Order: sequence, then structure tokens, then C-alpha cells
Amino acid sequence: MEVPEVVVLRLPLYVRALTHLKREGSEVVSSQQLGVRLQMTPAQIRKDLSYFGRFGKQGRGYHIHFLLAELEEILGLTREWNACLIGVGRLGRAIINYTGFAPEGFTIVGAFDSNPVRVGTKIGDLTVQPMTELRGSIVADRVTIGIVAVPATEAQSVIDLLVQLRIRGILNYAPVAPYVPHGIVMRNIDPVLSLQSMTYYLKD
Amino acid sequence: MEVPEVVVLRLPLYVRALTHLKREGSEVVSSQQLGVRLQMTPAQIRKDLSYFGRFGKQGRGYHIHFLLAELEEILGLTREWNACLIGVGRLGRAIINYTGFAPEGFTIVGAFDSNPVRVGTKIGDLTVQPMTELRGSIVADRVTIGIVAVPATEAQSVIDLLVQLRIRGILNYAPVAPYVPHGIVMRNIDPVLSLQSMTYYLKD
Repeated sequence: MEVPEVVVLRLPLYVRALTHLKREGSEVVSSQQLGVRLQMTPAQIRKDLSYFGRFGKQGRGYHIHFLLAELEEILGLTREWNACLIGVGRLGRAIINYTGFAPEGFTIVGAFDSNPVRVGTKIGDLTVQPMTELRGSIVADRVTIGIVAVPATEAQSVIDLLVQLRIRGILNYAPVAPYVPHGIVMRNIDPVLSLQSMTYYLKD
Repeated sequence: MEVPEVVVLRLPLYVRALTHLKREGSEVVSSQQLGVRLQMTPAQIRKDLSYFGRFGKQGRGYHIHFLLAELEEILGLTREWNACLIGVGRLGRAIINYTGFAPEGFTIVGAFDSNPVRVGTKIGDLTVQPMTELRGSIVADRVTIGIVAVPATEAQSVIDLLVQLRIRGILNYAPVAPYVPHGIVMRNIDPVLSLQSMTYYLKD
């Protein structure tokens, strides 16, 4: 049975909530308790998790360690993922210096820019490379994820290039909605979309 | 009828697609065509839009100008929104310099930081202010949205303060999932969550 993407998008939220509960020393959690934490109905949580097997026992709740380990396995979070970053302007530099990726198993192993002025500069542990080095780096460093932080006008061509170089996952920070072929997974980090769905609730 | 939040979250995507279509000179669009653009089923699109009235005519498609204007009204995008930014580190500076907000009606009118070294520095048109000025600025500048770009450890207390100062919308960039009381709308910009739902599809 194919799992709907909206369900997959929620799984990391479960992982995060369960990780907190585990740290707090809890061993079992009910769908009600998870629902309060995640602002979801218990029924939705049970339905989401039912796609992946029978995790909970009626009236007993979920075993936190077990459910967490299973979800991490399902999401592919038990391994390390290498990413390359394209575009080393202000945003790109903030991304390289972002401390949230590494603890979760995501490592930016290469930084690339088409601007010769930026090539050769150091940001954290990385030296900015020219775009001509991208192909070799993707192969040599087993890069599976491309992070795109170029201006809006360049985003589509950079993403086309990444797809051509067999990158299958793209995290796009450019404020556009690029096209990707079937089989490529793209996530857009788009604060404007977030704000625009927020104002619905603020407008009265 | 209360509109499910997942539907509200999708409305800005419709606005964006319709804006593109309008620029391209189209006048009418079918749910099939919108579906191709948004990678959604036509049935889902018709269902989403049906919450807000009857926009399309059977077999005739949607009138782009009219639907766009209605959705902008529904989302509160016909007015300007003022935001304050808390935390002017590398990320906060990238946010201030982000060019995507202003064209969509979102203006960062004040920047605040608890670090005295940063107070008084200029970033773009803004001068960084101390946290003691936050309350006055929110009132004087009619600020409704707080953008949080402080380290993870400080995020909850900053958000508590914003809520106390009657901010109702929070855009959180800190890599944590803070609690907010009922009635406060929070959106988390969280690249790790995006990556973690991406690897589900990449892991094979």
C-alpha cells in the first residue's frame, strides 16, 4: 500500500515528539498524549501509524523506544546523508553554519558557487568550489541531496543540473516553485508560504 | 464550517499558481491543469476550494482573476503585515536581507537582540534595538507577526514574551518545537523536518 505523502511529511514530527518523550524517561505513550503534543487528533495519529504496521496495543499505548526505532528505520534516519550546497551568498553561508543538520545525520560536504569571487573562500570547514567541480564531488563524496540557495532567477537551471547529475533529493531555499521530474523529491523552504497561511488566522 | 488547517496550508500554493497563470495571460484554468502544476489530484483541488464557495462551473474551469482575488481576500493578503525580528545573528541578518517578503506585503519593521554588542548596528534599513524596546515597537508599529531567529535554547522564552506582548502569529526559525497557547498561530521553518521526510523516498 502506498503511503500518502502527507503522512510521510508528518512522520518526522512523530520522531521528534518520541525523541523528547524518550529523553524525559517515558516508556509508553498513548495516542491521546501524542495528540496533545502534536496538536492532532488521536484518531489521525493511529491512522497514520497504521500504514506501517501494528505498533500500539489497545488501551496500552505505544512503546516509545520501539516505535521511535521503527520510524527512524522507515524514514531512513539510521544512516548518514551527504548533501552539497549550491549558492554561497548570505543565505548559503547561514545554511552552512546552521548547527541543526549534523546531529540529525545530514552533512554538507561541498559548497559550490558560480561567482568566481566566492570560489576559494572558506566557510566553516568548507572551501567554496566552482560549479565545474560539482559533478566530481557528487560522485566522490556520495552526495544524494542538493541544497539550493541561489537567487530565484537561477534556481531552475541549478535544479535541472542537479537532476542531470543524478541528485534525487532537493532542498530548495529559492523563493520559486521549480519543476522537477517524477522520481525527484523536492522540499521548498519557503517562509512566505508559511506567512501566507498564517494570516488566514490573523486577519480578523 | 471550520476549514481544516491542512487546507489553509495549501491555499498559498493555489495563490502562487494562479498568480503565475495570470502573468502568463491565462483567463481560465481547469482543476486538471492546476493539478498538474501543483502535483495534486483535480478532486482534491475541487474539494479544497469548495470550502469557500462555488468558484468553478462544471466543465468550464475556474476564472483565474476572480479566484485569485477571492483567495487573497480569504487569506488576508490584500493588506500589509508588519513583523518584528528577534535574534540578529547570521540567520537573522539573512532574514532581514531576504527579498521575498516585501513584494508579498510582509515588512520587517523592527529588529531586536539581547546581545548588547549587536544593539545599534545597522542591517539594511534597520537598526538593531535592545529587547527592552520590543513592547513599545509592537504597539507603535502595529506589529502582528514575530519572527524568531534566536538559538534553540532561547526560543521558548522569546516566544513566551511575544505571546505576552499580544503577538498572535509566530514564524519560528529556531530548530525546536516550542509550545504556544491556543489562538496563537505558529509556523516552524525547519529544514531538518523537510530533509527527514525526503529521505523516506531516497533510502532505497
